[in-house]
Amino acid sequence: MDFFFYPRSVAIFGSFKEGAIAYEILRNIVDGGFEGRIIPVNPKGGTVQVSGKTFEIRPKLEEPVDTAIIVIPAKFVPSLIDEIGDLIEGAVVISAGFSEVGNVELERELVEKAKRHGVRLIGPNCAGIFGVHRKFFGSFEVRVKPGGLALISQSGAFGGAALAMGNEEGIGFSAFVSYGNAADLNESDFLRYFADDENTKAIALYIEGVKDGRRFMEALHYAASRKPVIVLKAGKSASGAKAAASHTGSLAGSYEIYRAAFKQTMAIEVEEMEELFDAAKAFEMYPKAGRRVAVITNSGGPGVLATDKLEKLGLEIAKLGDETVEELRSFLPPQCSVKNPIDLIADADYKRYKRTIEVVCRDENVDSLLVICVPPIFISSEEVARAVIEADCPKPIIVNFMAGELVRDGVNLLEKRGLKNFPTPERAAKALAWLSLR
Amino acid sequence: MDFFFYPRSVAIFGSFKEGAIAYEILRNIVDGGFEGRIIPVNPKGGTVQVSGKTFEIRPKLEEPVDTAIIVIPAKFVPSLIDEIGDLIEGAVVISAGFSEVGNVELERELVEKAKRHGVRLIGPNCAGIFGVHRKFFGSFEVRVKPGGLALISQSGAFGGAALAMGNEEGIGFSAFVSYGNAADLNESDFLRYFADDENTKAIALYIEGVKDGRRFMEALHYAASRKPVIVLKAGKSASGAKAAASHTGSLAGSYEIYRAAFKQTMAIEVEEMEELFDAAKAFEMYPKAGRRVAVITNSGGPGVLATDKLEKLGLEIAKLGDETVEELRSFLPPQCSVKNPIDLIADADYKRYKRTIEVVCRDENVDSLLVICVPPIFISSEEVARAVIEADCPKPIIVNFMAGELVRDGVNLLEKRGLKNFPTPERAAKALAWLSLR
Repeated sequence: MDFFFYPRSVAIFGSFKEGAIAYEILRNIVDGGFEGRIIPVNPKGGTVQVSGKTFEIRPKLEEPVDTAIIVIPAKFVPSLIDEIGDLIEGAVVISAGFSEVGNVELERELVEKAKRHGVRLIGPNCAGIFGVHRKFFGSFEVRVKPGGLALISQSGAFGGAALAMGNEEGIGFSAFVSYGNAADLNESDFLRYFADDENTKAIALYIEGVKDGRRFMEALHYAASRKPVIVLKAGKSASGAKAAASHTGSLAGSYEIYRAAFKQTMAIEVEEMEELFDAAKAFEMYPKAGRRVAVITNSGGPGVLATDKLEKLGLEIAKLGDETVEELRSFLPPQCSVKNPIDLIADADYKRYKRTIEVVCRDENVDSLLVICVPPIFISSEEVARAVIEADCPKPIIVNFMAGELVRDGVNLLEKRGLKNFPTPERAAKALAWLSLR
Repeated sequence: MDFFFYPRSVAIFGSFKEGAIAYEILRNIVDGGFEGRIIPVNPKGGTVQVSGKTFEIRPKLEEPVDTAIIVIPAKFVPSLIDEIGDLIEGAVVISAGFSEVGNVELERELVEKAKRHGVRLIGPNCAGIFGVHRKFFGSFEVRVKPGGLALISQSGAFGGAALAMGNEEGIGFSAFVSYGNAADLNESDFLRYFADDENTKAIALYIEGVKDGRRFMEALHYAASRKPVIVLKAGKSASGAKAAASHTGSLAGSYEIYRAAFKQTMAIEVEEMEELFDAAKAFEMYPKAGRRVAVITNSGGPGVLATDKLEKLGLEIAKLGDETVEELRSFLPPQCSVKNPIDLIADADYKRYKRTIEVVCRDENVDSLLVICVPPIFISSEEVARAVIEADCPKPIIVNFMAGELVRDGVNLLEKRGLKNFPTPERAAKALAWLSLR
């Protein structure tokens, strides 16, 4: 599938009037910096201006390209595939109007024509694809930063919203695919592909239902044994399943079966959209983490909240070794608590944070660290961020700098160094819980 | 306690060097726009410049004021209270160094002197108080917008972080109190006070432990029978309880007892810091809502996620009346789903949203509405926001506009009209669940 996610050339079929979907996709591809060939195609010919560049619109495709993006009325799609089938490797069919509105026969025809020419299909009725490391944004959805997360979404709108929210959370993406009706390629194919894609560190999957449960199980097992796969399953409740059926036409099936499958394959199931991002953030940073956590904080309350959540999620509040406690006692002010959670109190500065992290990190009873910072007094949050970044600690560190604007500088510095922030103690605790499942 | 939260005059005791805590509090009071008398007091006298204004520092307090804010070394506080006790109604003792570090006797002396002069105490070892509707910001914590939420926090740092995060979530506050060691007034007193405060629509309470369980139960019952009380209890787990004990010295006690108390008194218990804000947002808008929810969306996936969460939380996906379904069918495009969740599909515009909200709102089987909007195509998110605002619907509406930057304009417009946004379908569903508990 490299021709989809690492294409060297792309043809776009549709209307190139400003505001039309094909135009918006062309613009996204151009603005995204795609360096391959870009060929807009429309029988009417002419030219189209995009971001200061002029493209000649070809009346038809006459040279081979890796991928075609198709946004023409549904009924013309099968014959287009017939016409260009030998020139393309893959087709992304954005057009709606197939099985999702009852046109099952048209969709069958589309698949059959594609097969005849050896063309692989994504869609129809989808929002398109991104191959972020090739700077290929073949969708009208908002562009994203390069990174390690591949997002596979059955729902186009969910995918689009997730990309935008991922941007806000500082997530980097390797790829995005919205596969709509899944007439040919589906979640199972994408799972296997991204499992072997070297730019993908973790896979996030939004599904309502799958067509072939056995194949899905195998693909999930294949992918999850290679890298973290985070799944958000919609249609879990009775009404939700009914709604999913009318939405993507997928039979959501019994949620219990899905749950068992997720457990068995070591896929990480999350329950909420926000958790999908939080888990993705955690796995973009670390492949896994052990269960014994040390909490380091400059404020008691948030330390207690983190502790509560960690225990509730089945993690352990690490019992620090005697040597660790002794060493902490040797340099921390007497008001500090040297028991886990370790409270460095409000005036904790760079040195106190850095040395504590290093001492605790050396303790063999500790697998991972949760470092909390409320707006410090006397120093900037940036200084605490520097302490976290510069501390010599090879174990996973999850950070929770909290209080929005007041710790913004610290959070920005952390994120520049690839340390993503979790805005509450509980969300940080959940991140560690997901990491411990691998 | 009006002298604390609606003072006409305040005296501040401490150092007024730039950066000192008393100076920061003075600055917060001045910058916040407090219109009453402000008297800085320090034996050394002199003047202090704050935000372009010059204040004479009095060597001692010689006239009556409502409230004193005290930031002098702990050992001098009792004698100060003795000296000024007859001039003040209340004292907020920021100074640390009392029972929390073992100086139990000093704290007893403080309380005794205060009692002798009929002075009520907040603290010691606290972060101060806000009376937001009097523009009185008697704390070094970040100032907030006026609104309906009173925040009572045992932990000063938690309170400070919560104020800053509340600002980001668009929450308006009536008051804030951090009560530290609770030597005199404690959570029970504040619960009763805010229960009767007319500017307070909802109360948020962060506690680790309480000193007098029976009194707390009574106060909680009193408050929760008057307005929504949202509680975040820290120290629920074994390790969390231990950490709380070393943090505020409070015996967290068995969590089961607290849980039973919350249930019995109809207080709304939340499990996470983020939920505290979400519940507060919901109750700032509505006093309560019924259990039968109609979901209106322009995207199937998020509608399914909302439905799943609502059912999981024990709410009902309202079964729409036949008339409602018929009327929706009469004007909605055939691809729309007129079953609950109602899917208006991607090109839904102002008219489609507004009329649907109005038709659904008239249905007697519907108690409340959850309106979802992913970035609409062809129109701006502002237009959908206008539809929600202008729809004639007296029932509670919870909105979930999602995708960050892409719906920013719509969200801003909603918030200007007092409709707070919940960023994911699940968080919106939880808001309705809390409203249904009242």
